[in-house]
Amino acid sequence: MKQLKEAIMERGTVLSTGVLKVDQFLNHQVDTTLMSEIGLEFARLFENDRVTKVITIESSGIAPSFMCAHQLHVPLIFARKKKSLTMNQANVYSSRVYSFTKQEYSEVTVSKELIEKGDRVLLIDDFLANGEAASGLVSIVEQAGATVAGVGIVIEKSFQDGRKKLEERGLRIESLARIASLDGSTVTFIDETALVNN
Amino acid sequence: MKQLKEAIMERGTVLSTGVLKVDQFLNHQVDTTLMSEIGLEFARLFENDRVTKVITIESSGIAPSFMCAHQLHVPLIFARKKKSLTMNQANVYSSRVYSFTKQEYSEVTVSKELIEKGDRVLLIDDFLANGEAASGLVSIVEQAGATVAGVGIVIEKSFQDGRKKLEERGLRIESLARIASLDGSTVTFIDETALVNN
Repeated sequence: MKQLKEAIMERGTVLSTGVLKVDQFLNHQVDTTLMSEIGLEFARLFENDRVTKVITIESSGIAPSFMCAHQLHVPLIFARKKKSLTMNQANVYSSRVYSFTKQEYSEVTVSKELIEKGDRVLLIDDFLANGEAASGLVSIVEQAGATVAGVGIVIEKSFQDGRKKLEERGLRIESLARIASLDGSTVTFIDETALVNN
Repeated sequence: MKQLKEAIMERGTVLSTGVLKVDQFLNHQVDTTLMSEIGLEFARLFENDRVTKVITIESSGIAPSFMCAHQLHVPLIFARKKKSLTMNQANVYSSRVYSFTKQEYSEVTVSKELIEKGDRVLLIDDFLANGEAASGLVSIVEQAGATVAGVGIVIEKSFQDGRKKLEERGLRIESLARIASLDGSTVTFIDETALVNN
């Protein structure tokens, strides 16, 4: 997605060979124009997949998934990273997820009443790296006996093995920007044209 | 706001005299149609206030503020509740906020590079109760030398003193639903008509 790649080049910062900071437009300050376009693009990509719900993880997944759910006319669920007092503890699906960025485990939970057996759930997240967060969401959807309709990712770190893990589970992944490398403080995207031609 | 009050009556649950659960449409599952309307209503209410940025706190504030920022053509900033590795620790404004729902303190932070001196910042949050979160955001805006253009609240618990605290600071508060009481497991709204007439 052209506008997204431009935002990454112009407003992203490579902090190390593994970490790209996108606080200027995605996960601290939100460019709502860009996030709207991203949401609409996800909706277009999965419009024929009979999606009944969109699921993401708080907090950075909410902005890019909002317009997708809105456009598909389905609810958006954001999985909580920490149980709160208003959530019935016995009544949640949960999965333990490790964040390499925050260097900690968190318990990702979704209230059981929000996902039903027949649901076809579209997963959306801001980043795909090792696939920890996405795999946690897949587990939650499966615990509910529902089906994962697909996975939409804003930025994929294609040099890590998240895509491979998800594809091995038979899932379709649509990433709007695929980064081949962050070496030399430079963002190098996977050349989609080259991939198609070879 | 009519649709919001209906959602509270039909899909909200009174857990105690102080706690209203709105997990079905606001802070776990998001009714994106309703949240869009809420965002557009905030944009309408503050359209003449020369807003340059919208600020909220992760996670539940993001959905109701997204369309407001989008409509006003300004960035949305969500304050972080916990510092992450990608945030430069020395370069943040911060404020300590107590959550009565979660019964814990959190450090709310915003990167210094996101708010500038001349900014007119609109604060949006899902709930106003004791005014802890909103006061924390006001403090952050003031630390930056910027101006609070107003405060937009989805659900105000008018039986707590948050509104009073903010009004004493000279701030204009627009709440889309004002709850007078949660006694007897029933939601009683402030009768706006009665307030106007008396």
